[in-house]
Amino acid sequence: MGKILRVQMTTLSVSVEELSKEDQPTGGRHFTSGVVSREVPPLCHALSAANKPPCGGRISIGAKSPLTGTIKESNAGGNGANALARLGISGIVIEGAPPDDRLRALWVGAEGARLEEAEELKGLGNYDTVAKLQERFPGKISCLTIGPAGEMRLPAASIAVTDEEMRPTRHAGRGGLGAVMGSKGLKAIVVDNEHGERPASVDREGFREAAALFGRLLRQHPVTGEALPTYGTNVLANILNEAGGYPTRNFSTGQFEGTEAISGERQRETIIARGGQPKHACHKGCVIQCSRIYHDEQGEYLTKGPEYETIWAHGANCGIDDLDAIARMDRLDDDIGLDTIETGAAIGVAMAGGLLPFGDAQGALSLLEEVRAGSPLGRIIGSGAAATGRAFGVTNVPVVKGQALPAYDPRAVKGIGVTYATSTMGADHTAGYTVAQNILGVGGDVDPLKPDGQAELSRTLQIATAAIDSAGLCLFVAFCLLDVPEALQAVCALTNAHLGLSVDEDGFAAVGSEVLRLERDFNTRAGFGPEQDRLPDFFSEEALAPHNVVFDVPAEELDAVHGT
Amino acid sequence: MGKILRVQMTTLSVSVEELSKEDQPTGGRHFTSGVVSREVPPLCHALSAANKPPCGGRISIGAKSPLTGTIKESNAGGNGANALARLGISGIVIEGAPPDDRLRALWVGAEGARLEEAEELKGLGNYDTVAKLQERFPGKISCLTIGPAGEMRLPAASIAVTDEEMRPTRHAGRGGLGAVMGSKGLKAIVVDNEHGERPASVDREGFREAAALFGRLLRQHPVTGEALPTYGTNVLANILNEAGGYPTRNFSTGQFEGTEAISGERQRETIIARGGQPKHACHKGCVIQCSRIYHDEQGEYLTKGPEYETIWAHGANCGIDDLDAIARMDRLDDDIGLDTIETGAAIGVAMAGGLLPFGDAQGALSLLEEVRAGSPLGRIIGSGAAATGRAFGVTNVPVVKGQALPAYDPRAVKGIGVTYATSTMGADHTAGYTVAQNILGVGGDVDPLKPDGQAELSRTLQIATAAIDSAGLCLFVAFCLLDVPEALQAVCALTNAHLGLSVDEDGFAAVGSEVLRLERDFNTRAGFGPEQDRLPDFFSEEALAPHNVVFDVPAEELDAVHGT
Repeated sequence: MGKILRVQMTTLSVSVEELSKEDQPTGGRHFTSGVVSREVPPLCHALSAANKPPCGGRISIGAKSPLTGTIKESNAGGNGANALARLGISGIVIEGAPPDDRLRALWVGAEGARLEEAEELKGLGNYDTVAKLQERFPGKISCLTIGPAGEMRLPAASIAVTDEEMRPTRHAGRGGLGAVMGSKGLKAIVVDNEHGERPASVDREGFREAAALFGRLLRQHPVTGEALPTYGTNVLANILNEAGGYPTRNFSTGQFEGTEAISGERQRETIIARGGQPKHACHKGCVIQCSRIYHDEQGEYLTKGPEYETIWAHGANCGIDDLDAIARMDRLDDDIGLDTIETGAAIGVAMAGGLLPFGDAQGALSLLEEVRAGSPLGRIIGSGAAATGRAFGVTNVPVVKGQALPAYDPRAVKGIGVTYATSTMGADHTAGYTVAQNILGVGGDVDPLKPDGQAELSRTLQIATAAIDSAGLCLFVAFCLLDVPEALQAVCALTNAHLGLSVDEDGFAAVGSEVLRLERDFNTRAGFGPEQDRLPDFFSEEALAPHNVVFDVPAEELDAVHGT
Repeated sequence: MGKILRVQMTTLSVSVEELSKEDQPTGGRHFTSGVVSREVPPLCHALSAANKPPCGGRISIGAKSPLTGTIKESNAGGNGANALARLGISGIVIEGAPPDDRLRALWVGAEGARLEEAEELKGLGNYDTVAKLQERFPGKISCLTIGPAGEMRLPAASIAVTDEEMRPTRHAGRGGLGAVMGSKGLKAIVVDNEHGERPASVDREGFREAAALFGRLLRQHPVTGEALPTYGTNVLANILNEAGGYPTRNFSTGQFEGTEAISGERQRETIIARGGQPKHACHKGCVIQCSRIYHDEQGEYLTKGPEYETIWAHGANCGIDDLDAIARMDRLDDDIGLDTIETGAAIGVAMAGGLLPFGDAQGALSLLEEVRAGSPLGRIIGSGAAATGRAFGVTNVPVVKGQALPAYDPRAVKGIGVTYATSTMGADHTAGYTVAQNILGVGGDVDPLKPDGQAELSRTLQIATAAIDSAGLCLFVAFCLLDVPEALQAVCALTNAHLGLSVDEDGFAAVGSEVLRLERDFNTRAGFGPEQDRLPDFFSEEALAPHNVVFDVPAEELDAVHGT
């Protein structure tokens, strides 16, 4: 069925392999974590020749992370996945170390794949990189690129994926995968988007029916059919602030007085007033359409979204309530090729360390330009929150396994604290999004302020998430999947009709369990044990206003999440 | 017998405790590691209120390290220990977090101890700090101080101890203990050196006799009686270079073409020609006297030594063959309060990352001034070699558990590689100095280039070292102890006569084993397992010239060192 491209940077050669039997049934995170787990030595340096970032069918990107030292999978929207699938390519494995320090681009098309020199892209931001690639490869293409941050191999570097409008706005953000691509000397992967054909399903009619049903269920659900399309992900700002779990000024309090000014509601008004797009699909065929297009004060395109996590990281977390400044930071992050969460967290830590005052939006913007320039200060910020904390002697550094915590304080949303602590990827809200049950009342209802039941909840969601990530689906479908039994059945039917399998709900969950097992096994071999499955001590020692709660899920319950 | 001062920074109070029964028989590393192991939560942030740096009788300083995250003991010469002992103080435990960001000094004298504000010392180097303290506390004092690096809580910050001439030249260098002192807001500990009396031995005559015998044996041994007094520690430069294990330009080759110019022999000539002191005791009563006083081109005092490790770190490791420039770096490190090994290693990594060329002595000196100024670049260097590697995207970063490797390449001196990998402190040559048997033929003879027998050798030495560190002895006595059976008997007799015990050679070694057990237990609880007891992968993949060897002691043998 599918093919695998293996790109050897040491010899600059590309070969094609048939997808092995064991990788046949699933893709996405199952594929990437499988390759990394089998082929990468767990104790290697993440920027060494031994590390291999493979790209799964639906842009799922994995490697040993230079930020956390763990296995890492990060997936993104955009059209790259679709283009690869139409070429019959299930994955790309990049290995070895480049023979020199020249930049290269990998071109993948209907006729095959080849590495080309791309020195003219050196130092360019993702926007300019994509523009140059469009000149060089006329016709319809999709691009995966790195900005200056990835070229500098900074641990907060992302990999950008172009969206429908050929803007590099969808990012595999977390864990420094852009640095791994940079260490391979690979500036871009260009995928021919014109040729190839839609992959045939074994049971075309069954696939069409299941897809129609699934789409209808998503449109009917209040989160995926209403809240997300109307306000985007930033619908959460007011909700989390209300719940007292909106981390403010480097996790020093749980409510931000400036939330209204940066909320999803205000964002929608601003977008509409300036002729932006309040609803937008980040890739072809999406029915949720939670993306948006943000215009500046002059009504010109500035950036996508920005998303809830980005607005929080550069906003409340830095004491900044200026939506336009935050949108500019989002644009800079996308262009420089930086994870918005890690970068915002690093700036928040720098503010806590006295480098600049909380609320200083201009100062924060300048810090991003420092990263672009590769100045020492920029390299500190681009090394992430943990490194910034070390450089500025900060004690309260919100990281797990070296990766910054996202936009939910684990003291007031305790389930997500369990996920942060025990995820195979370092602090990661998407690994098991208990905010659904803790705050939104979707898929159940678990009191966010009490320790009871959080470990069990996180465990169930981590398994489900690993399965969804392996099915090549956007995680946002989980809101519907967790609430509506027919939706999960529809996803199984989709998979079965496409691949000719007969997976039921239990089989779907079993894939998730297997992915977690693979990932935990890699991490164990890389030296991670239960002591690393912990939050920084200040979360259990310093009470969070307004609820005056600490994180108090017992260590034994954290250890029991993965049954160790 | 002895007393413990407990200094609570949160409440700014000092209390006196009797030394507990379990701490009674030994001191030094046994005392510090015991306190840290019992009283510090292993998962705490090393700069948090929970961490406690205790100072043992013979300046042994311990805490959870902000550099490695492990337990840490670092000991230094100078006169502070003697002064404390004369006041009957066996240890100082500093705990809690300061109530504000004001600097304080702890004064310890015959009448007791008190904390005083010391804001006027803010930002001062160790030399100026000591000068100011001498004005403020007239009479004979000894000082333990931190420079700007410690105040900034940089992970490479040291604690300086004054020598006989009241110069801050003896440092508890490794592991960032200066940052822990800085996090307590403690700029200085001032010990009254005028009052108090020599601690009485239970058997004075026995003590006098054993001391005389031990002194005689040390003077008779070729290393402690000849090589070290004549050439100082830097006698090793030519020897290690000859052996092909002198790490050059960030561990990229094993011989440095400029070794002659920075050797112990050349250093001695230079010192004598300029009227310096080619032989000097770093503390009262030392019979080895391997320290020295280095004058500049005008014949004025510039710095002590510098030691072999310092000359290597800033010299061969950075491709620099200018002894005067290296001596200036030593002076700056001492003044700013930086570990010379970690700092030189960080500069070498920055050179490998292209920040400045190898061999650029002026550039290296400027980097140290950047650390003093607290510039972003200085904060990267002051965060150590691992952080510098991350910021500049370097793959070959010579660290174990985040701490830089010292001046012996583990590929050509394989026993020391085992010590680096398995020490409880991160890469540390002093934890089990196999160079004696691998290179110097002292205490045995084990082929440095073969993997055989290295694990066993390192284990024996790690136990012996932990015992020597706990007896309050300088590690250099080990050359004689390992070679001459009567010397070990003399040390046992010294201990027994002083404390009224009856410890034999086995009992002496048992203390070492117990110290390692305590330290390993702390590290296990802090999340360190066998996977962290490894060298960076490039040592087993890239062969070292001129012997073209890789580090090939099998992982199972590393794991067997501590019997796990």
